[in-house]
Amino acid sequence: MRATGSSPQIEPAAAVVAPCVILVAPQLGENIGAAARAMANFGLAELRLVAPRDGWPSQAAAKAASGAPAVIEAARLYADVPAAVADLTYLLATTARRRDMVKPVLSPESAARELKLRAARGERCGVLFGRERTGLENDEVALADAIVMAPVNPAFASLNLAQAVLLVGYEWRKLADAESLGRETAVEPAGREGLALGDTRPASRAELIGLFAHLEAELDRSGFLRPPEKRPTMVRTLRSLMLRQALTEQDVRTLRGVISALTRAHERGPGPGERSK
Amino acid sequence: MRATGSSPQIEPAAAVVAPCVILVAPQLGENIGAAARAMANFGLAELRLVAPRDGWPSQAAAKAASGAPAVIEAARLYADVPAAVADLTYLLATTARRRDMVKPVLSPESAARELKLRAARGERCGVLFGRERTGLENDEVALADAIVMAPVNPAFASLNLAQAVLLVGYEWRKLADAESLGRETAVEPAGREGLALGDTRPASRAELIGLFAHLEAELDRSGFLRPPEKRPTMVRTLRSLMLRQALTEQDVRTLRGVISALTRAHERGPGPGERSK
Repeated sequence: MRATGSSPQIEPAAAVVAPCVILVAPQLGENIGAAARAMANFGLAELRLVAPRDGWPSQAAAKAASGAPAVIEAARLYADVPAAVADLTYLLATTARRRDMVKPVLSPESAARELKLRAARGERCGVLFGRERTGLENDEVALADAIVMAPVNPAFASLNLAQAVLLVGYEWRKLADAESLGRETAVEPAGREGLALGDTRPASRAELIGLFAHLEAELDRSGFLRPPEKRPTMVRTLRSLMLRQALTEQDVRTLRGVISALTRAHERGPGPGERSK
Repeated sequence: MRATGSSPQIEPAAAVVAPCVILVAPQLGENIGAAARAMANFGLAELRLVAPRDGWPSQAAAKAASGAPAVIEAARLYADVPAAVADLTYLLATTARRRDMVKPVLSPESAARELKLRAARGERCGVLFGRERTGLENDEVALADAIVMAPVNPAFASLNLAQAVLLVGYEWRKLADAESLGRETAVEPAGREGLALGDTRPASRAELIGLFAHLEAELDRSGFLRPPEKRPTMVRTLRSLMLRQALTEQDVRTLRGVISALTRAHERGPGPGERSK
C-alpha cells in the first residue's frame, strides 16, 4: 500500500514541551547543580542562567549535579532577564512573599496546571527563580504573567533554590504522570484560557518588552513618569496592568498603533473632524 | 471562679498533630539539618533520629538548620527503628524504588491525605526516611503500613534526604492550608480570581464606559479610527481588549492618565529630556 495524498500516518499528540527553568543571578555553582538535579528528578530539561555570579561553566555546578550532567551541559547563558525570556509566551515568577503587584498568585499545583495547559497548546513557558538570598527584584517579577508561591509555614518561609525548583518540577511531573495513567486531571479553563485566539498567537516576551519600551519612551517625553523617584513604581504598575491580560501578538500591534496615534494627534494639528467645525 | 477538677473550658477541636519524621541512620549532620529546615518550612515539628552515624548532638546539623533551631533542639534519639516507632499507630516508609512487598504504595499526596485522616482521629503517625545512600532496609520497610514513593523521573530517581522530607511536608501543608480555608482541596483560583486587589475595587461599568469614550475621542482626533466603515470593528476590538483584563477602578484612572499624557505630549512641545539635548 502506498500513502495517498493525505497523510495516512496517525500523528502522535504533539509532544508537550516542559517549561524551562530560568535562574536569575544565582550565586553558588553548587546551588545551580542542585537545581539541575531537581530538574532531572522530574523530567525538566531546559535550564537558562542569567548572569551567574561566579561565571559559567562552573565546576562546582557540574560536581553538585553529578548523576544528572545533561541539564548542566545543555544550560544556556544570558546577560539579562529580558534576553532569557524573549521567546517565551507564558512566564511565571517564584517569590517567597507577596509583592505589591496586581498579579495572579498561584500555588505550585495551579502553576503546573497552567503550564501544562499552555504547553499543550504549543506555547513556550518558563519559570523564573531568584537569587539565593534576595530572590527576584520587583522589575523581574513585573515581567511575569503570574506569581508562584509555595504554601510554606509563614514563620519559616525560606526555601532554598533547589527546593523551590523541586516543588515546581514535582507538581509538573504529577500532572504528566496522571495523564499517562489516562486520568482526567483538572485542566478546565479558567479565565484566560477561555480566550479564542483565532488567527493570532500569544505575544512573545520580546514583543511585550517592545511595547513597554514604546509606551514608556512616550510617557517619558510627556513628563508623565515623574518625579524620577516614582518612575520605577509607575513603570511596574503599567507593565503589570498590561501583562494581566495575556496579550496576543495582534493586541501588541493594536496597542502600539494606539500609542503612535495618540502621540501623533497633535503633531498633525486638529484632525479632520475638527477642521470642519 | 476556680478551675474544677475536670477542665471547664471548651476544648477547641482537638489539634491535629502533624506526623513525626524519623530519620534512620542518617550519615551527615548537614543532611539532618537540611531535613529539619524542610520540616520547619511546612510546619512539621517532631524529629526522631535512629542511630545517626556521627553521633548526636551534631554541630553540623545545628549549622545546617540555622534559622530553624527548634526542630533540631527538640529532636529525640533512638537506638533502633522499633524503639523510634513504638508509640505510633500509623507508619509510612519512603522508598525510591519498589520493593517486593505486598504493601500499598502511596504518592506523597495520598500519603498526606492518609496521615491527615488518621491524625484527625487522634492517631499518632510517622514517616520513615532511610540512609542517604542506601535508603531503608527491607526489615525497616516491613514495619510500615504503606510505602511512599514520589513520582520521579525513572531515569533519575534519586532524591536527597531533605528533598524527600520536603515533598512529604509540602503535601501535608497543602492539606492543612486547604482546610484552614474551609475548602476541600487546594487552593488556587487560576486567573483573575487570584488577583490581590489591595485597596482598590473592580471598575464600575460607568467607569469603563468613561475610559472607552476618552480613548475613542482621542483616537478620532488622531484619525486612527478610519476609514469610517471600519470604525465599529476597531472600537469593539479595543473595548474587548480592555475588558479582558478585569480592570480595577485604579487601573481606569491610570489608563486615563496615560491617554491624557500621550495626547498632551506634543501640545507642550518636546519634554525636558529633549530640551536639554
